Amino acid sequence: MIAVLKSDVTDEQIQSLTGWFEEQGLQVHISKGEFQTIVGLIGDTSRIDGDLVESLDMVESVKRISEPFKKANRKFHPEDSEISVGNTKIGAGNFAVIAGPCSVESEEQIIAVAESVKASGATLLRGGAFKPRTSPYDFQGLHEEGIKLLLKAKQATGLPIVTEIMSITHLPLFDDVDVIQVGARNMQNFELLKELGKLNKPILLKRGLSSTLKELLMSAEYIMAAGNENVILCERGIRTFETYTRNTLDLSAVPMLKELSHLPVIVDPSHATGLARLVKPMALAAAACGADGLMIEVHNNPQKALCDGAQSLTPEQFSDVMKNVEQILKVVR
Amino acid sequence: MIAVLKSDVTDEQIQSLTGWFEEQGLQVHISKGEFQTIVGLIGDTSRIDGDLVESLDMVESVKRISEPFKKANRKFHPEDSEISVGNTKIGAGNFAVIAGPCSVESEEQIIAVAESVKASGATLLRGGAFKPRTSPYDFQGLHEEGIKLLLKAKQATGLPIVTEIMSITHLPLFDDVDVIQVGARNMQNFELLKELGKLNKPILLKRGLSSTLKELLMSAEYIMAAGNENVILCERGIRTFETYTRNTLDLSAVPMLKELSHLPVIVDPSHATGLARLVKPMALAAAACGADGLMIEVHNNPQKALCDGAQSLTPEQFSDVMKNVEQILKVVR
Amino acid sequence: MIAVLKSDVTDEQIQSLTGWFEEQGLQVHISKGEFQTIVGLIGDTSRIDGDLVESLDMVESVKRISEPFKKANRKFHPEDSEISVGNTKIGAGNFAVIAGPCSVESEEQIIAVAESVKASGATLLRGGAFKPRTSPYDFQGLHEEGIKLLLKAKQATGLPIVTEIMSITHLPLFDDVDVIQVGARNMQNFELLKELGKLNKPILLKRGLSSTLKELLMSAEYIMAAGNENVILCERGIRTFETYTRNTLDLSAVPMLKELSHLPVIVDPSHATGLARLVKPMALAAAACGADGLMIEVHNNPQKALCDGAQSLTPEQFSDVMKNVEQILKVVR
Amino acid sequence: MIAVLKSDVTDEQIQSLTGWFEEQGLQVHISKGEFQTIVGLIGDTSRIDGDLVESLDMVESVKRISEPFKKANRKFHPEDSEISVGNTKIGAGNFAVIAGPCSVESEEQIIAVAESVKASGATLLRGGAFKPRTSPYDFQGLHEEGIKLLLKAKQATGLPIVTEIMSITHLPLFDDVDVIQVGARNMQNFELLKELGKLNKPILLKRGLSSTLKELLMSAEYIMAAGNENVILCERGIRTFETYTRNTLDLSAVPMLKELSHLPVIVDPSHATGLARLVKPMALAAAACGADGLMIEVHNNPQKALCDGAQSLTPEQFSDVMKNVEQILKVVR
Repeated sequence: MIAVLKSDVTDEQIQSLTGWFEEQGLQVHISKGEFQTIVGLIGDTSRIDGDLVESLDMVESVKRISEPFKKANRKFHPEDSEISVGNTKIGAGNFAVIAGPCSVESEEQIIAVAESVKASGATLLRGGAFKPRTSPYDFQGLHEEGIKLLLKAKQATGLPIVTEIMSITHLPLFDDVDVIQVGARNMQNFELLKELGKLNKPILLKRGLSSTLKELLMSAEYIMAAGNENVILCERGIRTFETYTRNTLDLSAVPMLKELSHLPVIVDPSHATGLARLVKPMALAAAACGADGLMIEVHNNPQKALCDGAQSLTPEQFSDVMKNVEQILKVVR
Repeated sequence: MIAVLKSDVTDEQIQSLTGWFEEQGLQVHISKGEFQTIVGLIGDTSRIDGDLVESLDMVESVKRISEPFKKANRKFHPEDSEISVGNTKIGAGNFAVIAGPCSVESEEQIIAVAESVKASGATLLRGGAFKPRTSPYDFQGLHEEGIKLLLKAKQATGLPIVTEIMSITHLPLFDDVDVIQVGARNMQNFELLKELGKLNKPILLKRGLSSTLKELLMSAEYIMAAGNENVILCERGIRTFETYTRNTLDLSAVPMLKELSHLPVIVDPSHATGLARLVKPMALAAAACGADGLMIEVHNNPQKALCDGAQSLTPEQFSDVMKNVEQILKVVR
Repeated sequence: MIAVLKSDVTDEQIQSLTGWFEEQGLQVHISKGEFQTIVGLIGDTSRIDGDLVESLDMVESVKRISEPFKKANRKFHPEDSEISVGNTKIGAGNFAVIAGPCSVESEEQIIAVAESVKASGATLLRGGAFKPRTSPYDFQGLHEEGIKLLLKAKQATGLPIVTEIMSITHLPLFDDVDVIQVGARNMQNFELLKELGKLNKPILLKRGLSSTLKELLMSAEYIMAAGNENVILCERGIRTFETYTRNTLDLSAVPMLKELSHLPVIVDPSHATGLARLVKPMALAAAACGADGLMIEVHNNPQKALCDGAQSLTPEQFSDVMKNVEQILKVVR
Repeated sequence: MIAVLKSDVTDEQIQSLTGWFEEQGLQVHISKGEFQTIVGLIGDTSRIDGDLVESLDMVESVKRISEPFKKANRKFHPEDSEISVGNTKIGAGNFAVIAGPCSVESEEQIIAVAESVKASGATLLRGGAFKPRTSPYDFQGLHEEGIKLLLKAKQATGLPIVTEIMSITHLPLFDDVDVIQVGARNMQNFELLKELGKLNKPILLKRGLSSTLKELLMSAEYIMAAGNENVILCERGIRTFETYTRNTLDLSAVPMLKELSHLPVIVDPSHATGLARLVKPMALAAAACGADGLMIEVHNNPQKALCDGAQSLTPEQFSDVMKNVEQILKVVR
């Protein structure tokens, strides 16, 4: 940590600050410049509140140098992580396609969708059993029954399943789920992250609506610090002032996250745009900029879907997207 | 719900859409204008996915008319709600001042702060026992021990206590807490909200960093729909592009929320700005624009605080703020 | 325009409102529903202030139906526009690549860059002569001399030139410029837009940092309404809370703008990200999602560049990007 | 400027970097820590592109220490600036109230409004003659005729006048205007700012919709660096994701700007909220948090206003606001 002191600081003030830092077990290096004095701290600065130091009268500004995240950091793990899910792999060159309906609605529906997306090349099946809805009066999912239907679809197709958890108390229901998804609204539900850190199954962590990349990585760090290093990051759009699309898909997050971290990064163009007709161009763009996979909503009858029908592709549209994605991957890999 | 159709829509398309709406039990009114056709729906439109309708080729746009929130809505409850907490009241003309440290650190600390804020006019004591921290490596609070210390401070001063919950599984520890706080990061932790809706103690609900006022009210609705109508709303700054302040305090949210809802609205200038020296002007501004109360961080030794010291007032500074707030209230009430 | 009235509105109020609308020459259609009354207006509603109507006590909400932009609207011009610049074309299937340095610095520099980008496939040369800089103390460009050097580079290579205008008073200097660029900060400099509307040369209009797509199209409409229909739209990143990248490139703007308008849409990944190493992935993503072209900063010696060196590619890097872009285009076109 | 180098940097790389800095006339101080090497630069670093340095492979991060703005900086001018306009003063304890209609519409209208706002205590008259409108088809103001009518109202009431300029080419029409306003959309129209810097009349500079406080101060610096130090800053709301209010009024900007700069800071609650009924609470809040003045839209017949009627107060409402503002000022001053 470096603190830059104001130009009018006295020697007495510098001594008092130095003393305070040394009390906390840090080594202090002072370098006086023509216009300012710089205080460098060496040792474990993690317990120092940088904002507090910055708020002191004598301090101009503070800069942290050490990395806030460790286990998720590419600096300390230069190789791409490869996450295994059943027979499929995600990251380190393996492109994952997670497809399925927003909500599981019936055995017939989920098996039909699972079979069609598998035929088009999907490698995992998604489907919501617990649905976070802004309104308490909206359909909230089939819950336990939804997970059972997903497992039937897995049995029928062999596709591993991905579904969202909304509460620690539901964890026992997720025993046979292959990948547990943490939704955008729970990205900073730290108690949930810590519990998921005790499992050894893959966690798909979606970026919060207004979360920075650093915060996303710190949330991954919560899971990893608790012992579970199988984390998959997912960019799904951030909240901005633009209203034509539901959110603003931040695709530059893909190469940036891959530079900062060794974890796989996938993209969800369905939730990001909220519009079925934008899913294809955004899926192709995600593949082109280096994503490790896609998460796409597919429904056999989008107009009857109980939630988010507006952003679901038909199986035919999904098949068309997959063909183009494969061609893009041939170019960029 | 009103759907505006595109100008080139055919009679056949209109019939097909009308049929679909009627199947869902709705009455349909068509009015053809010079340039567009408008479809009005009467009945319970809550099960209709407006985004889906808007995504149909023939539809230009859709407008919901019915209110998305009911129990929190001033339209259906014109009188201000008054929330009782022990001997103090919040809302309906009662100005609440919740003060105390970011974190409970020791018995000595919390009792000293409680006594000093009470002397200056605070009506409730705050203190964090469970602390949401961006980094898993930061101090996370004293947990159960922290709540015990808060209860000792309550015993010593008579001030009701407010503290944050981070997980449903901690609920048994909150039995003697007077007001349970839901932090910004958990504003859309819907499973937690539903559980809190089963209690009959006041819930202080903080606005999420990137939540709209409508989303805040829908989260209040989750608690209220489950049976607990004792909800206090709290504006604590939203995330914008500006970086001089930690967040951007949205004070126009105060009169707007009070127009939309009968629930009390308080303001937290400490977290909103992140800077102790901005707390006073923002507290005065909040009182001036009609807030029902304030939540302010006070620490007997901000420079040694284990978290958020940079935004904590000393007891002397807090006393000065309180004197000015009282004068402002005389002007605006 | 449709106005939805509040549920408790009286017949007298409806009559008064109807009378007021009729005074302004509009036809009024009233339809009373179970819960609300809807007032539809037919005729030229462009002079009605929708915000004012919405602010009336009796009005619940207002919805405009007519399109705010006409000449830029695909609805009224279904075919893609094709803009001719010298021997090159932009839009309607013609992919434009505009490359060159942030600033023109010397004859040697601009000719060297022009030759190298032409060799790699660029179709137009860019270079700043007038530079908008946040600080008055930063390098502001070579001005008239810069334009002369661009013209020499055009003579040497045959590439048409694109350069930014910052003031109406500089217009005479732009006589021989092929495409005049309006920067993000001037997107709503309406007096400048009106003047450019009197020319008949192509205008490259960059999206403002916090402009919605609708505002971008309305600014295009300013130019077109004044008589110049040769407008090229450019997405170059919007301002959000994320700080790892300079701006957030909004690639979903590309398919959305192309749906709303017939004008060509190009993407500037250099300014959007501010980081040379993100230019390639974002350029490929832009090509993949349907952009009509790219604008890329290239400098023969980025480390000595007088401005924005951090985001400039070397000629070698640019050549590599071009090869990949061409392959992507083969897939998506 | 301080550059923090990556941990794996070689001595050779450090030498090469040091050499490059020294070539640009800077003194270089190296301090090697346990985990990183810090390079401090002394001398005139204003010509160094910090982003470029940060983009070098060997560099971890860069921190500028010197202030980007000088003339607007309170550090170098600790006393509040007092701006004189005719017989009235703004700043340094003088509270300014600028009131009047969005647009000047007729002699009768502007004189009626001027007389009524003067009676209620306004100290300057505002009125738009050149109106920036998002749509080219909306009313754009009376132009030269509007300024003439403002001057008549000045003659009738003695109130100095404030009106917005949209183009350098209109400058001759503003000879008799007392305060020239630069609107939010032109805050970074640098050529206009430079021209206004050559005048010696007060400039009212509005914050751009998505401008940081630093950018606002840099734009003030453009005017001041060109010779005109009479700049008044105006907070008028920023663009966020919230849609209930037109913009989000950032009141913490007031104390923050006053800490950073000696220039007066006024607040425009009318444009910030877009809703007449929010003007009073926000005006009181602005006065409470230390603003040096207010800018408020008042119209004698808001329902007939040609623009922004929804946010205009009636003269009676304005008089009520003024009474309350005066009481607030007594408390906080």
